[in-house]
Amino acid sequence: MTPETPTVEMHPQRWGDPAAATRLPDSALGLVELAFGLQDTPATTDAAPPARSLGDDLLAGLREIVGAEHVLVDDATRALRTRGKSTPDLLRARTGDLADAPDAVVRPDGHGEVAAVLAWAVEHGVAVVPFGGGTCVTGGLAARRDGFAGLVSLDLVRMKRLLAVDEVSMTATLQPGLRGPEAEALLAGHGLTLGHYPQSYQHASIGGFAATRSSGQSSAGYGRFDAMVVGLTAATPTGPLDLGSSPANAAGPDLRQLLLGSEGAFGVITSVTVRVRRAPAETTYEGWRWPSFDAGSDAMRTLAQSGLLPTVIRLSDESETAINLADPASIGATEDPGCLMITGYEGAASEVADRRAAVTRVLTGLGATPLGTEPGEKWAHGRFGAPYLRDALLDHGVLVETLETATFWSNRERLYADVKAALQSSLGEGSLVLCHVSHVYETGCSLYFTVAARQSGDPLAQWQAAKAAASDAMIAAGATITHHHAVGTDHKPWFAQEIGEVGVRVLRAVKAELDPTGILNPGVLIP
Amino acid sequence: MTPETPTVEMHPQRWGDPAAATRLPDSALGLVELAFGLQDTPATTDAAPPARSLGDDLLAGLREIVGAEHVLVDDATRALRTRGKSTPDLLRARTGDLADAPDAVVRPDGHGEVAAVLAWAVEHGVAVVPFGGGTCVTGGLAARRDGFAGLVSLDLVRMKRLLAVDEVSMTATLQPGLRGPEAEALLAGHGLTLGHYPQSYQHASIGGFAATRSSGQSSAGYGRFDAMVVGLTAATPTGPLDLGSSPANAAGPDLRQLLLGSEGAFGVITSVTVRVRRAPAETTYEGWRWPSFDAGSDAMRTLAQSGLLPTVIRLSDESETAINLADPASIGATEDPGCLMITGYEGAASEVADRRAAVTRVLTGLGATPLGTEPGEKWAHGRFGAPYLRDALLDHGVLVETLETATFWSNRERLYADVKAALQSSLGEGSLVLCHVSHVYETGCSLYFTVAARQSGDPLAQWQAAKAAASDAMIAAGATITHHHAVGTDHKPWFAQEIGEVGVRVLRAVKAELDPTGILNPGVLIP
Repeated sequence: MTPETPTVEMHPQRWGDPAAATRLPDSALGLVELAFGLQDTPATTDAAPPARSLGDDLLAGLREIVGAEHVLVDDATRALRTRGKSTPDLLRARTGDLADAPDAVVRPDGHGEVAAVLAWAVEHGVAVVPFGGGTCVTGGLAARRDGFAGLVSLDLVRMKRLLAVDEVSMTATLQPGLRGPEAEALLAGHGLTLGHYPQSYQHASIGGFAATRSSGQSSAGYGRFDAMVVGLTAATPTGPLDLGSSPANAAGPDLRQLLLGSEGAFGVITSVTVRVRRAPAETTYEGWRWPSFDAGSDAMRTLAQSGLLPTVIRLSDESETAINLADPASIGATEDPGCLMITGYEGAASEVADRRAAVTRVLTGLGATPLGTEPGEKWAHGRFGAPYLRDALLDHGVLVETLETATFWSNRERLYADVKAALQSSLGEGSLVLCHVSHVYETGCSLYFTVAARQSGDPLAQWQAAKAAASDAMIAAGATITHHHAVGTDHKPWFAQEIGEVGVRVLRAVKAELDPTGILNPGVLIP
Repeated sequence: MTPETPTVEMHPQRWGDPAAATRLPDSALGLVELAFGLQDTPATTDAAPPARSLGDDLLAGLREIVGAEHVLVDDATRALRTRGKSTPDLLRARTGDLADAPDAVVRPDGHGEVAAVLAWAVEHGVAVVPFGGGTCVTGGLAARRDGFAGLVSLDLVRMKRLLAVDEVSMTATLQPGLRGPEAEALLAGHGLTLGHYPQSYQHASIGGFAATRSSGQSSAGYGRFDAMVVGLTAATPTGPLDLGSSPANAAGPDLRQLLLGSEGAFGVITSVTVRVRRAPAETTYEGWRWPSFDAGSDAMRTLAQSGLLPTVIRLSDESETAINLADPASIGATEDPGCLMITGYEGAASEVADRRAAVTRVLTGLGATPLGTEPGEKWAHGRFGAPYLRDALLDHGVLVETLETATFWSNRERLYADVKAALQSSLGEGSLVLCHVSHVYETGCSLYFTVAARQSGDPLAQWQAAKAAASDAMIAAGATITHHHAVGTDHKPWFAQEIGEVGVRVLRAVKAELDPTGILNPGVLIP
């Protein structure tokens, strides 16, 4: 089975569906002017990728493998496969910088064609960037091309079948090119759901979820994507991998966990078998007010450690709560808004009722004030919208970006303080640093930061300095450089510190074994 | 903190505490005679390891590292570090075969000494077998020594400290030499538990649990050991690994999951940081009768897929149930015993009560007959005792061994039938093949087989043929060669089929990077 509707291509210089692009509402313009001063920083409309370095003679072999209509070399398609959607990516795209454009976009259909494309690339010394949804925010789609004859984007858009459903084992086998909503629509036909809703959900792909260890907004209920995967197949330049003989086993190191998070550097994931659940009959989201970020975080810990989690649980710090409430209706409210928590429940009606009642008892007992379903519905309605707002702010000279990390509970306060201080110190007075917790575990949680600042004359350098300061703070605090955004190229120096010299050598050894000529995503992931 | 009591050494030819060795009770002798015919097959008491091939000049360097008193070369100690506790291991030991004895037993204390021992071994071309509890049942302690100057057993018995407890994050950092009860006793001092109770619990070690991906009898409540690990350190011949920056992250492949299950072939695990839980205030175990193995298995699936599992859940098939009931009091009962399920609940009193009530509703609704707490208490009382019974049966010419696998729910019936048929066909008429399910997941479960047969003149060959037939059936059914016993040397041919040629090459590449001269557990794990 394949999806019924065509894939929506994102705008080459902005996030998401071009039809959904937005300008800042007038009501917000005033606030933004007050905070940052309005600047007019429109994107150029005049950009073309560099001349392609792969000639038609070379591409003939590729056309034989996938069919001529699936080797695209037009400028518009090449522009659409240039980098991902981090703010640095967008800043570059907005200035018309398409230096990282692939020479061609190739669209194989099936494991065999992927393997054949890799063999062709090895033979001709061409670098290959696997492309799923294009939503990467860590530079994972900007491979190095030095030393290669050229670079092709291996677009998985034709591989979007639901290959198998096993309703006894509650697993589904999906091709990697399926976008989030496409996978959910196909599973819904069987009354099933994956329950994986990262902010990139509308455009990101199953293969990307696996290759980057994505984690969704409902992770408290459905788990991280890597925890859903029970099997996968991959094509590597030196042969196929087919892993997943059982839910769990003691047959050596878990090689599935070596391919998960491998970001296209070890192989191309050609199918993923995931645990699925019954589609929820009921979904409810509601809001809670906490007097402080610490109090709310402690409550999340209590829930996680008592095995009593909602499906969704997220907590904004004081600054993010204040900004979220900064709409015209809320302005002038004198009451301290505290910290907003969203809890969500998805499942059968009785399950939702039972769990909601139990969580409500805990949260109320710990000092939360119930805010009813309105804040929850508002969050659910806007849950995929923030990246559109980023574009609107970039149009007005505001630098906006996010970064995230995770640590153990006992280290949460320190990590929060240190990363926040690093960002504020780097971005200077007038910058905003917001934070929320949106993924919790028995032993710890994630911290997700959003920053906004008036753009300097070189916003890219401005951001890179702030990002480096924040990343240094994460590593100094013993935390991870990324909870769910992967390594890409942007995180490599800190990733190397996180896993140490021996860890880096292990990854290089695996890379050398699976991809001895290094054609796969050169420069991505491996320090 | 370290344990207060000295480590109990297991008998070199039998399982467990020599003081607890048992003979078959008279009541059982009759049954065994009826089933298999009694034979007298006593173990030899006359055995000595071969002359050691590492001279004192070479060992001087080792003595400098760990202290002379921690390099042991006496025959008794060498015999105690020869192989593990599989039935083939015991059959060999019972005939006095100590060919696999190490030349010396070295007992380092701490990561630094472990690293120094590895450097010494690399320098002198000596093979090293890491030794935790010695409970391995897959040949993982019988390393090859060809091509090496000799072989030392790296005994972690001095490394048994509780290094850190973090009661906010609910983690504990443990040294690898701690035996199960020692770790639990230290954690109990903080009101905590790991909750990991494999049948080997009384003798197996924390390092072994990690290196072999152990799974305990309470896995439904506490998870597999690999799921408990949030961090680890390891010493490898080419440097240290220190992994675990967060509960979960997207920082590349999960290298923790590459060391877990590495069976001492990549490095020596020198500490493990694990998720811990509050020690349960209440524990209750009870029994249920199911009309068939299929009906009980389907109920386990229903529970696992509704997120409503007891802490312990296990189900014996018809044969195992009948044998378990074959004590003098039960004999003559004409009622079909069906299939016995044990459910156990551990936690705070209210938690236990709530969960028990909910599970009871489901099981009763699906057709189970409650048997009260007596079968549960009986199981709990005898839960670590089966290996002692194996020795008693080996004394009487009965071949007894276990093997286990796992698969997805939709494949359970096939796997059960195929493995059972393979064992019965190989072992012939009069053999017993029993099975239970003791580890369940949303997507599948384990199958654990116990066989008993009259020993042939060559019981080792007899078992190896049956084991090969069963292993072939597992791989043919697409299942795993081992759910929780690891690969060792016994499973290597099937492990290679399970992960495929590319998977094997990945493991070899990691091995070559971390242990380029191959001193670590040569011949173990890596096909």
